[in-house]
Amino acid sequence: MPKDPSLEVLSAEPFNAQPPLRRLVDSPVTPLELFFVRTHAPIPRITETDFRLEVAGMVARPLRLRLADLKANFPELEVTATLQCAGNRRDELIRVRPVPGETPWGASAISTAVWRGMSLAALLQGAGLLDGAAHVAFLGLDVIEKEGERFGFGGSIPVWKAMLGDVLLAWEMNGEPLPPEHGYPLRVVVPGWIGARSVKWLSQIRVQSQPSDNYYQQRTYKTFPPHVDKTTVDWSQGLMLGEMSLTSVICDPGDGAEVEAGPVRVRGYALAGGQREIERVEVSADHGAHWTVATLTDAPVGAWRLWEAELELTSGAHEIVCRAWDSAAITQPEDPAHLWNFKGYMNNAWHRVRLWATGNDAEAAEAPAAEVPGGEPGASGAA
Amino acid sequence: MPKDPSLEVLSAEPFNAQPPLRRLVDSPVTPLELFFVRTHAPIPRITETDFRLEVAGMVARPLRLRLADLKANFPELEVTATLQCAGNRRDELIRVRPVPGETPWGASAISTAVWRGMSLAALLQGAGLLDGAAHVAFLGLDVIEKEGERFGFGGSIPVWKAMLGDVLLAWEMNGEPLPPEHGYPLRVVVPGWIGARSVKWLSQIRVQSQPSDNYYQQRTYKTFPPHVDKTTVDWSQGLMLGEMSLTSVICDPGDGAEVEAGPVRVRGYALAGGQREIERVEVSADHGAHWTVATLTDAPVGAWRLWEAELELTSGAHEIVCRAWDSAAITQPEDPAHLWNFKGYMNNAWHRVRLWATGNDAEAAEAPAAEVPGGEPGASGAA
Repeated sequence: MPKDPSLEVLSAEPFNAQPPLRRLVDSPVTPLELFFVRTHAPIPRITETDFRLEVAGMVARPLRLRLADLKANFPELEVTATLQCAGNRRDELIRVRPVPGETPWGASAISTAVWRGMSLAALLQGAGLLDGAAHVAFLGLDVIEKEGERFGFGGSIPVWKAMLGDVLLAWEMNGEPLPPEHGYPLRVVVPGWIGARSVKWLSQIRVQSQPSDNYYQQRTYKTFPPHVDKTTVDWSQGLMLGEMSLTSVICDPGDGAEVEAGPVRVRGYALAGGQREIERVEVSADHGAHWTVATLTDAPVGAWRLWEAELELTSGAHEIVCRAWDSAAITQPEDPAHLWNFKGYMNNAWHRVRLWATGNDAEAAEAPAAEVPGGEPGASGAA
Repeated sequence: MPKDPSLEVLSAEPFNAQPPLRRLVDSPVTPLELFFVRTHAPIPRITETDFRLEVAGMVARPLRLRLADLKANFPELEVTATLQCAGNRRDELIRVRPVPGETPWGASAISTAVWRGMSLAALLQGAGLLDGAAHVAFLGLDVIEKEGERFGFGGSIPVWKAMLGDVLLAWEMNGEPLPPEHGYPLRVVVPGWIGARSVKWLSQIRVQSQPSDNYYQQRTYKTFPPHVDKTTVDWSQGLMLGEMSLTSVICDPGDGAEVEAGPVRVRGYALAGGQREIERVEVSADHGAHWTVATLTDAPVGAWRLWEAELELTSGAHEIVCRAWDSAAITQPEDPAHLWNFKGYMNNAWHRVRLWATGNDAEAAEAPAAEVPGGEPGASGAA
């Protein structure tokens, strides 16, 4: 199935693309043709005939399996889960201070699908974990060239997460076989964790005492304090990313949009990390002095919650902000300036859009709406 | 063992008291005589002879057990865990806007002990959970009088948490039998959750499909948006508190302290909620423009991490702030004004202390140190 032409292509090779932000709230499950794509190398073309999955490392029974073996020997499982790139909302960090060399993702490097496959925990139980098994490392069949070496994309999750039962080895996405760009014929889906751990074109599962030694576990997908940059970084330090952080985003109306004064419907998504759930989403038109509680849609754990709220806007300029609360009563920080890190990961500051509300009063008639998108963030007053 | 006379008694009956903040960083395990106390009624005096624990509700085998039955039939377990009142750091919220009728806890309604007892999961496995079991409700032997009724303090946790294996039924604290004010002869200890779920003087465990209907589950320990107050609250709404939120606090030097200019050692605690871990603590002397990474002490999951950092302070006034990051790369919000709620729970904003550094230069000699504690928060400039 071809991708929707409305996708914004951030790089053609490797292929990286995000859907229009407003399209994300059309349905809780993102259509395949709109699902964001993150790759690090040319998309491998694999046939089911050639495909084998190797299970190795600290297991009692090392395995080498065809896709048909997986389908025949384990119960099928369906999970609705949201995947999000750790670089989602990097563009807001770039406006604080440049993030050289990284893809400038907007707020739509996130999508939700219904995944069908089998439980990773069931496969590991079948293989038998040995004493000391602490991490499950995944390796993909893509071929990345970096610093003179060629290797597949890899990453790992701790055994405790692997055994929770919600991590999938998936062969279907929204009722279709996995499209090539999403990992055909088999991929990992780790609900609640950064997208990088959901390794595509999966060829190997290795159980080990330490996290993966792959470049994408050890030398990227880590966060550092703001004084650390590419020239000073010590990669053995840093926070190795795993569970996703709590976030929420306004998808509609979009930043800079013109709306009619009066009741304005605001819609977006919210996502809690790990096993947590979204408890509340709030929207404010006065920089957080007053908050309107949004209505949440139903959704399973591991997937985002879409939400909507109605705000009463007078004619003129407005800045609308949103924030979410999770089941541990955690909420989001206000300011992306305090979240900047040189790789530009995990921005979960309050999300902001500037709107221009037009009405029948003289004030609205006089002001040129076209100037709003170029205005200074934060300079627009609340009604 | 009598409580240390240095405890600040916030109310004598019911007894509520917190240790001096600076004493908390003396050791990773808080001495019994310094452990904070939160009660809602007179401390019940129970003898082991009279004591019975009832296990009831959606279980295959309802039980009625003496303390000796528990000790004889289940493996002993030891867990180091931090308990924290959901109202810890309420005093900072009160400075934003009053929180009428609630105990004005400082930042030391938190302590850590080595608990010995047995696993709640083992007891529930012994009793046999029936289909539909979703919550485990606890009831205490204290007698609270409220709105014309008399009842024990109660609360519940979901079955998934109860079965994780880290929830204790504890009869010892730091190697001593539980002191009366901490729940003798038996209490619950729920690591990573608000203190209110660690019910003391435990008399009943009831497995049910819904959370506890106790006043302290349904009518308090919930958070609401800032526009909700006592007169407008709908208790069926609100975020029912469970897992604790990420927090960190500067314990030493204390707010308003005078220090010598030069390298200043700053020490404190940090706590991640639920099953998460503290990954990093940062300290800033310039309102977050630059951060110094603190050194963490070793500690098991479920317990706080003590930390220390060295800051170079010139003579004059300083505001020092700290923040923590957890294993989901979540950090704390900046401003308690955005966290205010009418019950004053779960304040986890950046913690701030104002210091006056004295030195040999003229500036320090002229300025009166005594004025610093009365200064405006945030008004003190960084060096």
